[in-house]
Amino acid sequence: MSSVDKQLEDLKAEITNELPRDISVSDVKYEGPELVVYTRDPKRFAKNGDLIRKLASKLRKRITVRPDPDVLSDPREAEPKILNVIPEEAGVTDLDFHADTGEVVIEAEKPGMVIGRHGSTLREITQQVGWTPEVVRTPPIESSTVSNVRNFLKQEREDRRRILERTGRQIHREQLSDDEWVRITTLGCCREVGRASFIVSTPETRILVDCGDKPGSDDVPYLQVPEALGSGANSLDAVVLTHAHLDHSALIPLLFKYGYDGPIYTTEPTRDLMGLLTLDYLDVASKEGRAPPYESEMVREAIKHTIPLEYGDVTDIAPDVKLTFHNAGHILGSAVTHFHIGDGLYNVAFSGDIHYEDTRLFNGAVNDFPRVETLVLESTYGGRNDYQTDQEDSEQTLIDVINKTYENGGKVVIPAFAVGRSQEIMLVLEEAMRSGKIPSMPVHLDGMIWEATAIHTTYPEYLRDDLRDRIFHEDENPFLAEEFNHIDGGEEERQEVADGDQAIILSTSGMVTGGPIMSWLRHIGPDPDSRLVFVGYQAQGTLGRRIQNGWDEIPVNDNDGRGRSSTLKLKMDVETVDGFSGHADRQGLENFVKTMNPRPEKVLCVHGDERSVQDLSSALYHNYNMRTFAPKNLETFRFK
Amino acid sequence: MSSVDKQLEDLKAEITNELPRDISVSDVKYEGPELVVYTRDPKRFAKNGDLIRKLASKLRKRITVRPDPDVLSDPREAEPKILNVIPEEAGVTDLDFHADTGEVVIEAEKPGMVIGRHGSTLREITQQVGWTPEVVRTPPIESSTVSNVRNFLKQEREDRRRILERTGRQIHREQLSDDEWVRITTLGCCREVGRASFIVSTPETRILVDCGDKPGSDDVPYLQVPEALGSGANSLDAVVLTHAHLDHSALIPLLFKYGYDGPIYTTEPTRDLMGLLTLDYLDVASKEGRAPPYESEMVREAIKHTIPLEYGDVTDIAPDVKLTFHNAGHILGSAVTHFHIGDGLYNVAFSGDIHYEDTRLFNGAVNDFPRVETLVLESTYGGRNDYQTDQEDSEQTLIDVINKTYENGGKVVIPAFAVGRSQEIMLVLEEAMRSGKIPSMPVHLDGMIWEATAIHTTYPEYLRDDLRDRIFHEDENPFLAEEFNHIDGGEEERQEVADGDQAIILSTSGMVTGGPIMSWLRHIGPDPDSRLVFVGYQAQGTLGRRIQNGWDEIPVNDNDGRGRSSTLKLKMDVETVDGFSGHADRQGLENFVKTMNPRPEKVLCVHGDERSVQDLSSALYHNYNMRTFAPKNLETFRFK
Repeated sequence: MSSVDKQLEDLKAEITNELPRDISVSDVKYEGPELVVYTRDPKRFAKNGDLIRKLASKLRKRITVRPDPDVLSDPREAEPKILNVIPEEAGVTDLDFHADTGEVVIEAEKPGMVIGRHGSTLREITQQVGWTPEVVRTPPIESSTVSNVRNFLKQEREDRRRILERTGRQIHREQLSDDEWVRITTLGCCREVGRASFIVSTPETRILVDCGDKPGSDDVPYLQVPEALGSGANSLDAVVLTHAHLDHSALIPLLFKYGYDGPIYTTEPTRDLMGLLTLDYLDVASKEGRAPPYESEMVREAIKHTIPLEYGDVTDIAPDVKLTFHNAGHILGSAVTHFHIGDGLYNVAFSGDIHYEDTRLFNGAVNDFPRVETLVLESTYGGRNDYQTDQEDSEQTLIDVINKTYENGGKVVIPAFAVGRSQEIMLVLEEAMRSGKIPSMPVHLDGMIWEATAIHTTYPEYLRDDLRDRIFHEDENPFLAEEFNHIDGGEEERQEVADGDQAIILSTSGMVTGGPIMSWLRHIGPDPDSRLVFVGYQAQGTLGRRIQNGWDEIPVNDNDGRGRSSTLKLKMDVETVDGFSGHADRQGLENFVKTMNPRPEKVLCVHGDERSVQDLSSALYHNYNMRTFAPKNLETFRFK
Repeated sequence: MSSVDKQLEDLKAEITNELPRDISVSDVKYEGPELVVYTRDPKRFAKNGDLIRKLASKLRKRITVRPDPDVLSDPREAEPKILNVIPEEAGVTDLDFHADTGEVVIEAEKPGMVIGRHGSTLREITQQVGWTPEVVRTPPIESSTVSNVRNFLKQEREDRRRILERTGRQIHREQLSDDEWVRITTLGCCREVGRASFIVSTPETRILVDCGDKPGSDDVPYLQVPEALGSGANSLDAVVLTHAHLDHSALIPLLFKYGYDGPIYTTEPTRDLMGLLTLDYLDVASKEGRAPPYESEMVREAIKHTIPLEYGDVTDIAPDVKLTFHNAGHILGSAVTHFHIGDGLYNVAFSGDIHYEDTRLFNGAVNDFPRVETLVLESTYGGRNDYQTDQEDSEQTLIDVINKTYENGGKVVIPAFAVGRSQEIMLVLEEAMRSGKIPSMPVHLDGMIWEATAIHTTYPEYLRDDLRDRIFHEDENPFLAEEFNHIDGGEEERQEVADGDQAIILSTSGMVTGGPIMSWLRHIGPDPDSRLVFVGYQAQGTLGRRIQNGWDEIPVNDNDGRGRSSTLKLKMDVETVDGFSGHADRQGLENFVKTMNPRPEKVLCVHGDERSVQDLSSALYHNYNMRTFAPKNLETFRFK
C-alpha cells in the first residue's frame, strides 16, 4: 500500500471516529489540496453545521463533504426543492447537477443570498436534497470569457477530477529528503521589466512562480537552463501565478506544450483573465505574422489545470510547502504570494506587482504575514526619482487635459492595459461625468477592455469594498454607465468615431506594442487638436516609451491587406499623466516594506530597470538595515 | 553533412594547401582536443621539422601527425632501427607498436634522451621508420598503479579512440546559442572543507569541476539538483579534476555509473593518483561495511575517459571554452585551472588547493594568467589567525620532536595523506638523517605511501626542479634511501615494528578516519614514550581533529574478525607541527591574490570552514578592494 493510501485509510478511521455514530463515511479522497469525504448521510452531516469546521481544524486540512453517489436524489425532484429554499431575490440563473460528485452548481446574480449567513442556506439545501451546493455568480455584464471557461470546465469535469486526484496524491506524498534548504532561482525580470519567472526550490519540491513575456522584446524566461524544468516540465511540483498580465502569464500555457501536467495555483479572476489575455496574445502573434509559441489548446490545458484559491486560504501545495495569496492591489485577482516552507523552516513572500495605496478599484496591497524572512519585491518604480503624483491630483490633471481637448474639438486617446488601468480610468471618467467635471461624451472601449470589465463585475469580492457594494446594485454599477461604448464594429466603427465629435478612447495595448491602439494612432494621430495620454508604465523598448521620449514618426501597418507598413507623422499632443499606475511608486514600495509585519531579513529587488532595482536595493539597505540584493537573471540564492 | 564533417573537410583542404606538394594528406580527424592528420608520407613530414608547428599556429589547433596505416613498415624491421637511433643511456625498457594509429610507444628510463633537443630524436625516428613515436617514463620505483593504468589503456585502446573521436566532434560542434553568460554553481565545499564540486556553465556548455567526498562525513556533492547533472550525466560537456585528493576526486567515477560518457581533463599524475586513491576508497568502504557508491569498474571507466593535459597547454574543451592547467604546488599533478570563455568574453580561474611558497617537493602555485576576472579561491587556512610557521622552523620542530622521542626510546607516528605530505616529510627525514640532525632509524611507510611515492618518481617533471634532477640520478634519488621501509607484511609486521626499537611511522589516513593508522594507534597508542605528530590539516568531524582537540579515548576496531570495537585510551603524547601543510596559509592566500597577475575583479572564497571563508572574503575585500563572496552550497553566480 502506498504511503498516501495508508494516510487516507488512517484519515477515514479518524474521521469516522470523530463523527456521530449515525453518520457514515463511505470514502475519503484527496482532490488537489482538499480532502473530500463521501458520506451516505449528507443530510445528517449538514444538520450539524459545525462538524466540517471542527474536522478541518482537527485534521488541519481543507475538507469538502459530498454525498455518496448511491444516495443521491433525482435532480428533477431536487431542483424545485432547492429553488424553494433559495430566496427569489438571489436571482438563480442556472442549476447544474453533477451526479459523479453529488455537486449541484448554482449560478445566481446574488451568490450571497444563496449562501446565507455563515452558509446556513447552503446547509439547508443539503439537508433537503442531499446534494452539495456550489455557488457561482452570474456575470452582471455578459462575459464570453467567463461563460467559455465555465462551459469548458463543465465539459472537462472528469479529466479535471483525475488531475485533481493525482495532484492531491502528489501534495500529500511522503517527504523523502531530510536535508533542509530553500532557494530562489531567477529566470527572468531581474534588472529588467518583463518575463517574470522564478523557481522556488527545496530538497523535496520545485515551484515555478510566474512565466511571462517581455513587452517590446522577444525575450522569454530562461526555461532552457536545467534548474528551470530539470529533467522535464513535470519535474515541477506546482506553478503559481501572481496575476494575469502577460509579462507574468504569457508563457504559462507553454509549460503544457513542454509536457507539464500539474497544477496552476492562482485566483479565480486571474484564471479567467489569463485565458482572455493569452488567447489574445496568440491572436496578436498570428496577426503580426510571428509563430505563436503554443496553440490555443494549451491555454485550455492551463485553465483545466488551475486550482483556484481565495485570498487568505492557507493551502498545502507540496509536502513541505504551504501557499497563501493576499490582495496585491495591482489588478483584479492579483496576489502577494506567501510560501511557508517546512515546519517553520522558512518563509518567502513574492510581492508580484503591487499597489500599496488604495485605488478606486482595489484596496492596497497586504503586507501583514505570520512570518516572512525573505521578500522578493517588484521595483518598477524603484528609482531614486520615481515618485508619482497623488491620484487625486492626477485625476484633476486628466480632467483638465480632457476639458482642454474637448474645447479644441479634439479627441483623447488613452492607451491602456485591458486589465486594471482601463477600469480605474473608467471609474474616474464615470464619476467626472456624473458630477459634471467633464462634459458627458462617449467613452469608446476598444480591444479587450469591455470583456475585461465584464470579468471585473463577475468577481466583485476582489474589488474595493464600496465599489463591490455599488456593483451589487445594478442601477449604481458604474461600469454600466451609458457613456461607455464597446467598439465591436472594427475599422468601420473606428473611422466613424474618428470622423465624429469629441470623445474619449481607451484602447489596448497599454504600451503601444500592437493591437487596436495602432489603428487609433493611424486615425487620430495626424490630428493636432487631439491628444494621446499615457496613464501607465511604458517599458523600455516599447513604442509607447519611444513616443513618450519624443519620437513622432512611427511605423504603422497600412492595413491594406498586403502587410505593407509606412511611417506615420504623429501630430497629436502627447501627454503623460502619472499617478494612475497599477504599481506602487518609490514611496509606496518603501512604505510597503517599512510597514511590513514582520519586517523581512532579506529583500530581492526585481522587476525594474537596472537603475530602479539598484536604487531601491541600496535605499532599503541604508534606510531599514536589511540585506538587499539586485539579482541578475539566472542566479540562484540559498536562504537556509 | 554535419557541421563537424564540413569543418574537417575544409581543414583537410587547407592543410593540403599549406603542405609541400610531395606530402599527401589521407585523412583528418578530431581525437579529443587534437587534430590528427594522417599522411602517406610521414617520413617527409618528419624531415621538415617546423611543418607541424607552423600548421598548428596557422590553424590554432593542437596537431598530431600519424602515418596512414597502409604505409607502415613492419615492426620487426622498425624496432632495431628505432633502437639504433636512440642513445643507449636512454634506457629503453619497452617498445609497443600500434598498427591502428601508426604509433610506437617507447618506455624509457630517461625519456628526455628519446625525445632529443626540441624533439630531434623523435623526428629522426619517424624519418627512419615512418611510425609516430610517443614516449613514457619507466618508473624508477616500480609502481603497480602506473603499470596497471598503462596496461589497461593499451588493452582499451580501441574503445578509447572511439571516445576520443566522439569527444573531438563534441568539442568542435557548431555553437548554437548567441546568448552570452557565464555562471558558477556551487555543489559542495562552500563554508566547509570537503566535497569540492562546481559547475561552470554557459549557454552552450556545462563543465563539472571536481567531485569529491567529505572526510569524516557521508556528505557528497549536491549532484541531485537539476543544475548539476541536468537531464542526465551526459548533459555535462566535460569534467575537470584539479587534483587527486579524495575530497576533490572520490565521486568522479560515480559520474560514469550515472551514465556519463564524456572526457575527464586532468594531468597524467592526477589520473594515476585518482586511480590509486579511488580504488582504495572503495576498499576502505567495503572494509568498514559501508556500501561503496560505485564499483571498481567505474574507476577504470574514469581512467579510460581521461584526456591528460600538461601544465600550460591551452586546450579547446568545448566550442566556447578553453582550459589551461598551471602548477598549484599542492600535490603531484595538482592544477590551478583556468577557463577562457567565449572569444574574449570572460575568464575564470579555480585555485583548486594551492601552496603559494615553494616546498621541498614543488614549486609554488602559478598566479600569472593572460586574463582572469573571477577567481574561485580555496580558503582552508583563510581564518584571521591561520598563519603557519615557516617550513624551516617547522622542520626544526619536527627534528626536535623526533630526537626527544628517540631519546625516550619511543616511536614517532605521523598520520599523513598518502599523496603529498608523506613525500614532503620523507624528504625532510632523508635529509635530516643524511646530515646527522636525527639518528638514522627505520622510517616505515604504511598504507599507500610507498605506491604514491613510486608515482611521484614516475612524473619528475611535476616536481620541483632540483628534486627532479636528483631523481634522474639513481644514486641520489632521496626516495630510494635505505631507511625507508615499505610495510607490506600487514599486522604481523606492524606488531614487530611496535615491539622493536625507535622508529618513525608514516601512515594513512591523514585525518585518522580509517586505514592502517588505526592499527598503529592500537599498537603504539598506549605507549606514553611515543608520540603522535600531526603534520597536516585535520577537517572538522574527523577523528584527527578530535584527537588534536584533546580526545584521548578513541573507538577502535578490535580486529578480531568479528567486527567488534572497543575504546582505546591514548597515552602517547600528541603534537601538532604545522608548516608542512600542502595548503597556503592565510599569508600565502593573501600573497597569491596580491601578486596575482592580473588582479581578478571578483573572488569566491570556498573550501574552508565558515569562519575561514568569511575572514578571508572580508580581508580581501578590505585590503585589495575586490568584490568578494563567501558562497553557500547550491548557489549560482552569474558573472557576465
